[in-house]
Amino acid sequence: MTDTLARPRARSGGRSARRTLRTTRDFTMLPGLTRAIPLCEVMDGAQVEKIDAASMDILENVGVVFRDPIALEDWKQAGAKVEGERVYLDRGLVRDLIATIPSDFTYSARNPAKNVRLGGPHSIFVPMTGAPFLRDLDDVRRNPTLDDLAMFHKLAHMMPALHSSAHHIVEPYDHPISQRHLRITYSSMKHSDKTFMAMTTSPKNAEDVMAMCAILFGEDFMEQNPVTTGNCNGNSPLVWDETMLGAMRALCKRNQPVLCSPFVLGGANTPASVPASVAQLNAEALSALAYTQVIRRGCPAIYGHYLSTVSMKSGAPMAGTPEISLMNFMIGQMARHYGVPWRTSNTLGGAKTFDAQAGYESATTLSAVLHAGANYIWHSAGWNEAGMHCSVAKFVVDAEQCAMGHRMAQGPQWGDFDQALSAVPDVGPGGHYLGHPHTQDNFQTAFFMPELFDNNSIEQWVAEGSKEITQRALEHARKLLSEYQEPKLDVAKDEELRDFIARREREIPAADELNQDY
Amino acid sequence: MTDTLARPRARSGGRSARRTLRTTRDFTMLPGLTRAIPLCEVMDGAQVEKIDAASMDILENVGVVFRDPIALEDWKQAGAKVEGERVYLDRGLVRDLIATIPSDFTYSARNPAKNVRLGGPHSIFVPMTGAPFLRDLDDVRRNPTLDDLAMFHKLAHMMPALHSSAHHIVEPYDHPISQRHLRITYSSMKHSDKTFMAMTTSPKNAEDVMAMCAILFGEDFMEQNPVTTGNCNGNSPLVWDETMLGAMRALCKRNQPVLCSPFVLGGANTPASVPASVAQLNAEALSALAYTQVIRRGCPAIYGHYLSTVSMKSGAPMAGTPEISLMNFMIGQMARHYGVPWRTSNTLGGAKTFDAQAGYESATTLSAVLHAGANYIWHSAGWNEAGMHCSVAKFVVDAEQCAMGHRMAQGPQWGDFDQALSAVPDVGPGGHYLGHPHTQDNFQTAFFMPELFDNNSIEQWVAEGSKEITQRALEHARKLLSEYQEPKLDVAKDEELRDFIARREREIPAADELNQDY
Repeated sequence: MTDTLARPRARSGGRSARRTLRTTRDFTMLPGLTRAIPLCEVMDGAQVEKIDAASMDILENVGVVFRDPIALEDWKQAGAKVEGERVYLDRGLVRDLIATIPSDFTYSARNPAKNVRLGGPHSIFVPMTGAPFLRDLDDVRRNPTLDDLAMFHKLAHMMPALHSSAHHIVEPYDHPISQRHLRITYSSMKHSDKTFMAMTTSPKNAEDVMAMCAILFGEDFMEQNPVTTGNCNGNSPLVWDETMLGAMRALCKRNQPVLCSPFVLGGANTPASVPASVAQLNAEALSALAYTQVIRRGCPAIYGHYLSTVSMKSGAPMAGTPEISLMNFMIGQMARHYGVPWRTSNTLGGAKTFDAQAGYESATTLSAVLHAGANYIWHSAGWNEAGMHCSVAKFVVDAEQCAMGHRMAQGPQWGDFDQALSAVPDVGPGGHYLGHPHTQDNFQTAFFMPELFDNNSIEQWVAEGSKEITQRALEHARKLLSEYQEPKLDVAKDEELRDFIARREREIPAADELNQDY
Repeated sequence: MTDTLARPRARSGGRSARRTLRTTRDFTMLPGLTRAIPLCEVMDGAQVEKIDAASMDILENVGVVFRDPIALEDWKQAGAKVEGERVYLDRGLVRDLIATIPSDFTYSARNPAKNVRLGGPHSIFVPMTGAPFLRDLDDVRRNPTLDDLAMFHKLAHMMPALHSSAHHIVEPYDHPISQRHLRITYSSMKHSDKTFMAMTTSPKNAEDVMAMCAILFGEDFMEQNPVTTGNCNGNSPLVWDETMLGAMRALCKRNQPVLCSPFVLGGANTPASVPASVAQLNAEALSALAYTQVIRRGCPAIYGHYLSTVSMKSGAPMAGTPEISLMNFMIGQMARHYGVPWRTSNTLGGAKTFDAQAGYESATTLSAVLHAGANYIWHSAGWNEAGMHCSVAKFVVDAEQCAMGHRMAQGPQWGDFDQALSAVPDVGPGGHYLGHPHTQDNFQTAFFMPELFDNNSIEQWVAEGSKEITQRALEHARKLLSEYQEPKLDVAKDEELRDFIARREREIPAADELNQDY
C-alpha cells in the first residue's frame, strides 16, 4: 500500500520547494498552547464536591505535618490549630487563603517574545528535570556533566514546542553538589532565552537563584512578574518538609510561583482507589497552596503533583497506566474548581531504553494531559526509566510529539474551509488533489509532517540504512546542535552573574551529597 | 527513585498470592466497552450543520460514481438522478434512507457469552486485517501462511480486550487466492468463538462466507441477528466500485452489517484541510450508508473510514498525526448526528519495526479513538509499516493497550470510595498503605498492571537479560500459544463447513492474483 501510493505530482518548481522544506528548519518557539478542544471531565458536579469535601475532612480531622518550625509558627499566626508538627486546617481558612491565588499569569522570559501565559486554556511544555543519568548522543547510559546539561539546554532552546529550558534536566556530576545550583541556573539562563526553572534543593540554594534572577530581570520587575517557577514536593501522605517549605518561602516572598506537588505513588502512599487517591492528593496540594498565601497573599502558585501508580508485583512506579490518565482528568477538574493553574507530568516512560514501551507510555500520557487541560506540562521531553535517565533521542522525539499535541489541542482550523471545499468539484470523483492549487498552497500547514517518524516504504528505509527511531533521533539531535546559535546574554548582566557565582562558590564549601527534585 | 522505593510489605501469604498473580492468567474476554468518559466533540452544533450541508451539496451537485450496473439501476429505482455512472443524491432521499439504519445492535458470536453490542456508548476492539507480510515469533518479516493466520486467530481468541477474531489478519500465501476466503473464514470460525469478519474481496467470496455463516448460525438466526461484519472500501474521492458494491449486497440482503469505508489519504485524495476532508469523507460514507438501505431497509450498517494523512515529502500515508485525531473526533460527531454506529482504525503504525515510533503512533490513535467514541475499533492489534505487516510482538502489546484503554474509558470507579478514604486516617501523615487491609483487598483491581511493560530497576532488568519490549512480547506470545485451548466447533457443523469448503474448492479454479481489503 505504502509503496504503490503515487508520489505527489508537483507543479513546476515543486521539487525544489520540497527540497527547501527538507533543508530549512524553523526554530521559532511555538506560542504557548491555547487549548481549543473540550476538556475531558470525568466527574459531575456532585463528584467534584465529594472530592472537595473528602479533602477538607482530611485537612480538618487528620491534619498535615509541616516538619518546619517557621511554617508551624506561620500557621499559628494564620489561625490554624497546631499540635506538635501537625496542622489542622479549617476548610474556611483554606478557602479564604487559596482565593487570592491568581487564576492565570504571564511567565516572563528574558526575551519578551518568549513570555508565556499560564492558567485557564493557556499551557506550556517544559522539559524533564532531575535525571541522575543520561543516555547520550551515542545512546550510552552514564552520569551527566555540565556540558551534557548545556546540550539539553541548547536542545530545549531549539525545539519549537518547548517553552522553557527548565533547570537541572540532568544532574551535572562534575561539579560539587553544594555549588551546582549556581552553574545549573547559569546554564539555563545562558543557553536559552526561554523561561527557566528555579532550583529548590534547599532554602539557601533557592535564595541564590532568586538573587541571580534579580540580576537578570531586576528586583522591581520580579515584584510584579513571575520570571521563574520552583517545584516543591510533598512527602505523601500528608507531610511537607523543611527543605521544600524553606525553598517555597524564598520564592513566594519574591512573588515567584511554586508548584505545590504531592508526590503520589498510587497504592503505596495513597489508598488503592483512584478517587480516594485524588482526595488525598487534593488535600495535600491545598495545604501547600494555602501556605503560599500565608507567606504572601496574592502570590501566584500552581497546583502540582507527581503521579504514578505502583506495580504491586515489583513495588515500582508505572507510567502510562489508565489510572494515571483518569487521575489527571480529575485533578484538572479540582484545580479548575479552585481557579488555580495546575501542573502535571507529561511523557513519562518506565522503559530502560527508547523502545516501543517508552513510546506507548509517553504518548498515552501526552494525550491524557492535553484532554485534561493541564497548564504547566512538565517532564515533556526526555524522561525514561522512571526518571532515572534523560534520553537525548527521546528528548527530541518527545519535543516533536509536543508540537503535534500543540496542533491537536488547537482543534480543527476552519479558516480556508470554503476554499478547500471548492477543490472537491474541481477534482471530482476519481481524481486526486496533489496538483490542485489549494493543496499546493496549504499542504505544509494542513497536515503535520513529523520529521522523526519514518513513513517511507520498507525498500527505501532499508536503502537508507534500516534506521530505527533512536538512531534517527540521535542524528537529528547532532544536526540541531551543529546549528545552535546562542541567544547572547546582555554583557553587563552576564558579568554580574559570573561575579555572583564566583563569590558564592568562594563562600559555599564544596560538599558532596546528592540532592534531587522531580 | 525506582530502585529505592520500598517493595510492598505483604501480610502473611502475600508472597504466594503475588506468585499466583504472576502465574495464572485470565483469558476471559472483557465485556464490550461501555464508554463512560465524556466525548471529545471539537465542533459546535453550527459546525456539524456546516459539514452536513457541505456533504449534502457534494452529493447533490458533484455526485458519486457507482461503477456497477446493478447499483445504478437500484439508484434509478430509488429515485436518484443517474447520469452515466454518476449518481446525484438529493439530501431528502439520503436522510430518508439513512433514517432506517439501527443506531445500535448486538453482534452475535457462536458463543453467546461473547456477543457484543455496537452503537451509542458500546464499542469493540477488533484486530488488524489484510497484512501481506508478518513479523513472526522470531521477528522475521516474511509472507504469511495459513498456520500464521491460525496463530493470530488463536492470539485474538486469548487476548481479553479483543472482541473478534476478524478474518485475514494476515494474507495466507500458501493457498490459492481464489479459494483463500474459504480457509480464512474457517480459521476465524474454528480457532475462536468470538465474533469474526466476512471476506468482501468479491461478491462471490462474500456469498460463500454468507453460506458458511448460515451453516454455523442458521439462516433464520441470521435474518434477525448480525453474526459477521464486512468492510467495503470506497475509492476516494467519491467512487464505489463493483467488487465492493456486490459484496455489500451479499451481506445487506442477509441483514448483515457492512462498514461503509471511504479510504482517505488526507491531502492526496481529499482537500488539504481537515474540515473539508471530513466533509468529503462524510459525503462518501453517507452515499454508501444510503445504498445499504436501498438494498434492504432496516439492515444494520456502520459508518466507516480508513484514515491517514499523507506526507507531502514522500507521498506516504502517516499515522498518529494530530489531524487524524481531529478527524476522528469530527467523524464521531457526524456519525452520532445521523444516529449510526461508526468504525475507526486504531493502533496504526507506520514504523518498519516495533520501535518507539510504533509505540507513539499507536498510543496516540488509541487515545484519540476512545475520546472520539468510536464503536467498531478496527485494526486494534498488530498493524505496523502502514499495514504492510502484522507484528506478533505488536499484536500482543496492542491488545494489552486496548485492555488499558478499556479500563480508562470506563472512568473512575467510585464503588469503594468511602472505604478507601477511611484508610487515610488509619495510615496518617508519613505512613504507607501497602499493608493496609483495603490495599491488600483491592490492589489487583485498583491499578492496572501491564504485563508487557517492564517497570523494574535497571539492575533487575539487566539481570533478566536486558530485554526490550519486542523480545518480551514475543516470549509472551509463545507462552500464550502454549496455553491455547481450542473452543471446539459443534461436530456436525464443523463437518458441514468442511464439506462446503471441499465442494467450493472443487468448483473454484485455483487462480493466482492477490486481492486485499483494509
